Amino acid sequence: MFKFEDVKVSDNYVIREARRNDCEQIREMIKDLAEVLGVSQDQIKLDAKTLEVHGFDTTPPAFKCLVVEYTNHRTNLNNGFDGNQNNNSTLVGYAFFFFTFSSWCGRELFLEDFYIEKEHQSKGIGSKLFDSIVEIAVKTDCSNLAFLVIDGNPVNAFYKRRGAVNQTKEDKFHYYLIEHEQLNKLQQKNKINGK
Amino acid sequence: MFKFEDVKVSDNYVIREARRNDCEQIREMIKDLAEVLGVSQDQIKLDAKTLEVHGFDTTPPAFKCLVVEYTNHRTNLNNGFDGNQNNNSTLVGYAFFFFTFSSWCGRELFLEDFYIEKEHQSKGIGSKLFDSIVEIAVKTDCSNLAFLVIDGNPVNAFYKRRGAVNQTKEDKFHYYLIEHEQLNKLQQKNKINGK
Repeated sequence: MFKFEDVKVSDNYVIREARRNDCEQIREMIKDLAEVLGVSQDQIKLDAKTLEVHGFDTTPPAFKCLVVEYTNHRTNLNNGFDGNQNNNSTLVGYAFFFFTFSSWCGRELFLEDFYIEKEHQSKGIGSKLFDSIVEIAVKTDCSNLAFLVIDGNPVNAFYKRRGAVNQTKEDKFHYYLIEHEQLNKLQQKNKINGK
Repeated sequence: MFKFEDVKVSDNYVIREARRNDCEQIREMIKDLAEVLGVSQDQIKLDAKTLEVHGFDTTPPAFKCLVVEYTNHRTNLNNGFDGNQNNNSTLVGYAFFFFTFSSWCGRELFLEDFYIEKEHQSKGIGSKLFDSIVEIAVKTDCSNLAFLVIDGNPVNAFYKRRGAVNQTKEDKFHYYLIEHEQLNKLQQKNKINGK
């Protein structure tokens, strides 16, 4: 669907597509992001293996992910330092997304998660990561880029500078969920009623 | 991914999976729903042919759709009446959906549109159509069922009776869009800046 070419942010950072063996670190960053958002870790039901299955064993994958690799560690490794890095890359940010379909406009890119570790912020990495998502959206003929943001998250200003429109405020859109347990209850009730 | 078996609502209505030649009528209902929501018809960019391509020529399809067929016309046709129906089924409602992926909980079902024509409301069709969506969500191992609702739409009460939680009100989630034209502008700007 698209071929993403690595983007070098500086000598220390590169943005690339996630690989199968990144899933452990992506899982850790998903937890970190939840913590930043003030959301309980209990909400996170997926382990790294499940991410692997849905992102790398499923055709087509249920999600796509760009990651920000901190290449400074790797440089050290090549110089004989940092021998404990075990050849793993160190990830310091990610953008988790998938394609949806608006009945009005066609294909959309939905940006589920967007995160840069605090100590790596304010270095232009977030901007480059977001630019990369925009690039993918345009190249895959997406009509819109959509995402949810929690009120009060400082990232609101970041998105607004890029022309994002808060549909909740402009058009009074509310986002609803029926959660797993309630879905099962509804289905059981329908069965009993002889559907 | 799932096999949906037709659901007979009454002698007059059946819920079934959409077929390729339903796309013209689905397109009409998408327009009708926009009108009910007070949204300009200019927002609707897709024609029936595009729906066909993304729903029936793409593997896997970009969306799925259940439709409500008004079978009374068909009965009349069989009895020799209603000869102008041209063997097309008459559709009076639809549920337009696709699968997304939460980084916390895994696969979700996103209900993009849900509509019953006004003159066919209050006959239990909406409930059965929604039950069918719940059934598909449970059978396809979805962790949640998600959707957007415009403030003030009477369907809010319908969803709340089924245990839907307004995440905008509960957790202050806001729904954002960066629209097509703005996406292109952002990409052009990135190119000029030598990304």
